[in-house]
Amino acid sequence: MNSIIGYYSTQFGELWDKSLDDLFLEVASGILEELRIETKQLDAIFVGNMLGGVVERQLLLSAHLSELLDVHIPIYRTEAACASGGMAFHSAHEYLKSNPKKTVLVLGAEKMTDITASEITQALATAASHKEQSVGLTFPGVYALMAQVYLKKYGYSEEHLAAISVKNHAHGILNEKAHFRRLISIDDVLESPYVAYPLKVLDSSPISDGATALILTNDPQMMKNRNIATILASESATDTISIARRRRLDEMESTKVAGSNAFKLAKLRREDIDVMEVHDCFSITEILALEDLGFWKKGHGGAQAKEMATYIESGNNLIVNTSGGLKAAGHPVGSTGIKQIGEVYLQLTQQAKKRQVKNASYGLAHNVGGSGGVAVVSILGV
Amino acid sequence: MNSIIGYYSTQFGELWDKSLDDLFLEVASGILEELRIETKQLDAIFVGNMLGGVVERQLLLSAHLSELLDVHIPIYRTEAACASGGMAFHSAHEYLKSNPKKTVLVLGAEKMTDITASEITQALATAASHKEQSVGLTFPGVYALMAQVYLKKYGYSEEHLAAISVKNHAHGILNEKAHFRRLISIDDVLESPYVAYPLKVLDSSPISDGATALILTNDPQMMKNRNIATILASESATDTISIARRRRLDEMESTKVAGSNAFKLAKLRREDIDVMEVHDCFSITEILALEDLGFWKKGHGGAQAKEMATYIESGNNLIVNTSGGLKAAGHPVGSTGIKQIGEVYLQLTQQAKKRQVKNASYGLAHNVGGSGGVAVVSILGV
Repeated sequence: MNSIIGYYSTQFGELWDKSLDDLFLEVASGILEELRIETKQLDAIFVGNMLGGVVERQLLLSAHLSELLDVHIPIYRTEAACASGGMAFHSAHEYLKSNPKKTVLVLGAEKMTDITASEITQALATAASHKEQSVGLTFPGVYALMAQVYLKKYGYSEEHLAAISVKNHAHGILNEKAHFRRLISIDDVLESPYVAYPLKVLDSSPISDGATALILTNDPQMMKNRNIATILASESATDTISIARRRRLDEMESTKVAGSNAFKLAKLRREDIDVMEVHDCFSITEILALEDLGFWKKGHGGAQAKEMATYIESGNNLIVNTSGGLKAAGHPVGSTGIKQIGEVYLQLTQQAKKRQVKNASYGLAHNVGGSGGVAVVSILGV
Repeated sequence: MNSIIGYYSTQFGELWDKSLDDLFLEVASGILEELRIETKQLDAIFVGNMLGGVVERQLLLSAHLSELLDVHIPIYRTEAACASGGMAFHSAHEYLKSNPKKTVLVLGAEKMTDITASEITQALATAASHKEQSVGLTFPGVYALMAQVYLKKYGYSEEHLAAISVKNHAHGILNEKAHFRRLISIDDVLESPYVAYPLKVLDSSPISDGATALILTNDPQMMKNRNIATILASESATDTISIARRRRLDEMESTKVAGSNAFKLAKLRREDIDVMEVHDCFSITEILALEDLGFWKKGHGGAQAKEMATYIESGNNLIVNTSGGLKAAGHPVGSTGIKQIGEVYLQLTQQAKKRQVKNASYGLAHNVGGSGGVAVVSILGV
């Protein structure tokens, strides 16, 4: 079985004194030192990054890592917009399925704060269709359209969305690596400025720098005396680049397909899942995710959100985004998918400290690229 | 065994009336129609592309393909600069190793001619280190440094380099999809303007648009009544992003490691190989490739090149770059690695028409990213 034996993360935030290479080196050295693994014990590296070329003029990241770590092993860069990290993890899992007794490093890193907010928004928009880009429809706008449809169709208000951010900030204060560590109220969200109606600043994940790393192995020797979580499934699916070509705007087909395939493969029921990290780039996205993954019936998510049904203090059986989610932990896009897996790993191996969910045995991570053009759903167990 | 059952290529050249999506659609429809395969028979897609984000503001290419082909299957984008295509093929081979009875589409596409020569040179330079970029060292400059070291160390002249281009143009006139289809002479090369001493325009591969596609399968049903080549090995290796950090400039460590691993895995000797496509982004690169892959002793390549030892009319046992290589066939970077595999496939299945090498049973493809930061070496047999 393919297992995760360790996770490491840099601080997430506006790290103006760190370059993309600095982040790579910090997170790679961090995890290797913590696990006492040498680079010569690694058989391959998988790296998720979206904007290296567009923003930092840094392509061929594999060769950057070869130089930083002094290795000549295969290094795979995956790019799937905000699901780049999830795809790096997914690809590493595929690799291990056919290569026995191997150990691989999975990295995600993104450097986003060296340019203006307007420039980074335009850079992120390269993951939208040309037509959407040409009419000025950036991702806040795309998700705002989804939110409008959802609120209208099921009779919810902006307060229902706001509760997602409130919950995730309440989780974020428990995560020492989070970009934001302060409580916010429903009123704070409602009073924050609109980004694209009905989404406001506090419905939106921030622009962050940060890097994350996992070590995966299928080598029994390497698993000895380690904190281990097993990868039960990692499935990905795709959908149209253009939202105009979607059948519906109140669901994500890619999430539904990847989720359904992952549960079949893992042979688990929804109620088996104890902890979950889902893609909350905007508040609406978390609601759609829980519905499309099959945890809440379509249209019921708004009510569940308002009740903070997945808050760690709720006493319920499913806790979502203990890391603070993209909203509070931050969203360095290439790192996010790996942070999600890392958070689930920490929960399942009882290393989540103040935010530990009791008796967590199964967890799920859900990472989205673009407006749902790619989704990766992974299920872990102990 | 993982097998290739088909190859398709668009015309390579300055395709001003075609977008990146047009190229994707043309090549994907082309191969599926030719092989009478429907999209629902595909289990995954692998796509190699370098500059979609940097030049065309098109990231998340997986979602473009989902929309163009109306599929929700996993789609993997690989980026490894000019080895993006080779890595797409390599990743598809890895995927098939662990997923039985699957059929995958492997695509490469690059759209390079919509911007000026200066802009595209700068875009390509994003695959160099920041330090090299900051001092204005573009890829012609990087390879010129390698050529200077090589010529001086082994006592060769620019004529020795020129012979590589002459041979590849002589092959290119036999390839109906090639960007350039005209014979050139040693004098033509020597009289062409310097790009970066000692490399001249006619030592250099052109800026091209184009797309290529392969169908790979491990499903015995899918192989029936097809022209089949078997994948015996596909190995990749990495090296430093900075040439200043290399031990030597007259060899490529990544090629040596990937090549050596590939031959071990394929259990073949160098003399078993009949046809080969190697990475000749500049004339010097083909010479280094044949040496570093173990076909010619280090320093002997210049003399072999001048004798046109690997020309199809040479009567020798190893013929190199029958497609015309990157030099004459063109170099739409994400497509190149897949075109190389495709050309070897056509040779091994006796479909190479005017440029068919008699009795070709084993072939090799060698794809380089950056100045050697990544190399992919694949070996096919029939």
